[in-house]
Amino acid sequence: MPRRVATSDVSTLQPSWKPTVTNPDRVEPTLNGPVLIVGVGLIGASIGKALVRAGIDVHLWDIDRSNALVAAGRGAGSLDDLADDAYHMIVIATPPAVVAQTIVDRLTRHPQAVVTDTASVKGAVLAELTTLAAGHGVDMSRYVGSHPMAGTQYTGPLTASSELFINRTWVVAPRPDNRHDDVEQVVAVAQACGARVVSMDAHEHDRAVAEVSHLPHLMSILTAANLRHARPEHLSLAGSGIRDVTRIARSQTAMWRQILSSNRVEVRSQLEAIRDDLDDLLSRLNDSQRLEEFLSVGQAGARKVAGKHGHQMVETTAVIVEIPDTPGALARLFADVEAAGVNVEDLSVEHNPAREVGFLSIDVAPNRAAQLTALMRDHGWSVRS
Amino acid sequence: MPRRVATSDVSTLQPSWKPTVTNPDRVEPTLNGPVLIVGVGLIGASIGKALVRAGIDVHLWDIDRSNALVAAGRGAGSLDDLADDAYHMIVIATPPAVVAQTIVDRLTRHPQAVVTDTASVKGAVLAELTTLAAGHGVDMSRYVGSHPMAGTQYTGPLTASSELFINRTWVVAPRPDNRHDDVEQVVAVAQACGARVVSMDAHEHDRAVAEVSHLPHLMSILTAANLRHARPEHLSLAGSGIRDVTRIARSQTAMWRQILSSNRVEVRSQLEAIRDDLDDLLSRLNDSQRLEEFLSVGQAGARKVAGKHGHQMVETTAVIVEIPDTPGALARLFADVEAAGVNVEDLSVEHNPAREVGFLSIDVAPNRAAQLTALMRDHGWSVRS
Repeated sequence: MPRRVATSDVSTLQPSWKPTVTNPDRVEPTLNGPVLIVGVGLIGASIGKALVRAGIDVHLWDIDRSNALVAAGRGAGSLDDLADDAYHMIVIATPPAVVAQTIVDRLTRHPQAVVTDTASVKGAVLAELTTLAAGHGVDMSRYVGSHPMAGTQYTGPLTASSELFINRTWVVAPRPDNRHDDVEQVVAVAQACGARVVSMDAHEHDRAVAEVSHLPHLMSILTAANLRHARPEHLSLAGSGIRDVTRIARSQTAMWRQILSSNRVEVRSQLEAIRDDLDDLLSRLNDSQRLEEFLSVGQAGARKVAGKHGHQMVETTAVIVEIPDTPGALARLFADVEAAGVNVEDLSVEHNPAREVGFLSIDVAPNRAAQLTALMRDHGWSVRS
Repeated sequence: MPRRVATSDVSTLQPSWKPTVTNPDRVEPTLNGPVLIVGVGLIGASIGKALVRAGIDVHLWDIDRSNALVAAGRGAGSLDDLADDAYHMIVIATPPAVVAQTIVDRLTRHPQAVVTDTASVKGAVLAELTTLAAGHGVDMSRYVGSHPMAGTQYTGPLTASSELFINRTWVVAPRPDNRHDDVEQVVAVAQACGARVVSMDAHEHDRAVAEVSHLPHLMSILTAANLRHARPEHLSLAGSGIRDVTRIARSQTAMWRQILSSNRVEVRSQLEAIRDDLDDLLSRLNDSQRLEEFLSVGQAGARKVAGKHGHQMVETTAVIVEIPDTPGALARLFADVEAAGVNVEDLSVEHNPAREVGFLSIDVAPNRAAQLTALMRDHGWSVRS
């Protein structure tokens, strides 16, 4: 099992986040045999590449033979067929609509193998699978659901990367009838890909993604949809806040329709909670103290997101430097930031389509902002604060 | 009146937005005399600096003498007093709570002057002012409200910049009893600061900011507040979407309480529209076609925000380059991007607190993405797609 170790000094331009600490007392499970990946789009091919790099024997299959060819050509595994009972692990990374049927087919065809999938909603797969398995008399105990949380936008095997899952969250969703060793084999797949494994059952997984992903998407949609009432000239008053809130509403509607539909029970429950909060908020609008209490609850939640994974959000100050309209400006700008020796916590480009100039916002510790500002000004940069 | 002209060729790294075109047939109004700025925090002192740079005689006053001293020291104007009737224009940039009373005081004290303010909600100021003016027998016709839309976070005169308003929207809110010449003088202040003037009355201004700023803030707050129900481990499933949506919910609650309270009528109307949409959305959850229709309305609104100011949003493809953990990496990276000669539409740093590496997302025209990817890989960069 490969372990990631630091291979170089931390640059002053690297964000100062701490790496995840692996418990040294835990013996990580190893994969016990060949893996077959069924469906080699971005996710399947990326898993293949990561497992191949970890020294595992990986085989590929896709209903579209050209996908399999591309993935094999990019080092995601072999196109050779082994005997059905030679596979130890089947990873199903097909489009969501065919996941449950594919699980049943593969449980039947590979009686020795643990079968997992990568679908982004677990309860819907499980419900369909339970019905299908009962109809076909298939024992589901060798199925252990999982969900690698990286790149939801399907873009095919050409863009596959062995690093797609490094330090990403990978949810493994065991069920009471799973054997412990089978669950550990799915954990081994995730860890071989460099992911951080989080274990929760299908129901809890679906509730969690509704809370942190599906509901925020719909709040972005509701905010953006409300602009259909706005006169065009009102949009000239829009700033960066509404652009942040509505950014994800620009995403593919077909993909989100599928995700939201397959998790509709949990999504409904989240939207109903929002409706209650909205009524509460309306009742507070005329009482500024109660209004501020509500704003504070939101602020606390937003800080939890910013500081997720147990890291506290670092308080930073933005040093805003104008990006001049000259070739090579950003390269010179970063060279000077590095020379200043100040640790950069975050970076963003601030712009306004109507402005002729862009600004680079460099977030640093509050007690270093004055130093960086002075040094950048010494080098001739226009610094806003 | 200074005009901004292009001083150099457009760099390949400059976003390809078009500059605002000034109508050459329009004669821009000029300011006819000395200006007094009352309240010199960030906004007041920045206006002072911009007007001084435009060659205008600016005088400063603040209830806190140290603010006035700092602002004068930073070139925002003079601390010398002129005779009350020598001022031609009074710009009131005090905290919102005292704006209306200050307008009445200054209308009385400077019988020759046009008086404007910079408060971010216009209807509340106008209502309070109307009551106060009636009580004091003051003629309001020399008051023309305005709202420069830049930097809502009050941070004092130390961070003032003469460039704060360049190409920003500055709303001028005329009333039927204003003289045309007085309105033009306020327009002249905004234009001398480099702003783009948008004219709308107080009611329409307040509705517009409710739509594009205050409602999005509350949607961010509602999304973030909903996390109070989430188990801590669920937050490990959070991605960049929820961080974008909840970013502005981290803002100062006291400032937003003031803003929202003073615009509560329009904010309530927006929230009620959202409640109706939320009920509609709930009714669509079980019908995937009707759900996707709703998502499409949101997508269209989000694209309008991204392409505001009459610019169509440019379709782009992200080329995602790993930022290596070595000194000088970003400077070298940008040098290579520039050498590729591909126009960069947008930039952002993508990161995950749990990942040890950062990624730079470089948005380019879809038909240039493959070229940039190939060139960057040739230079040894790890490119994700």
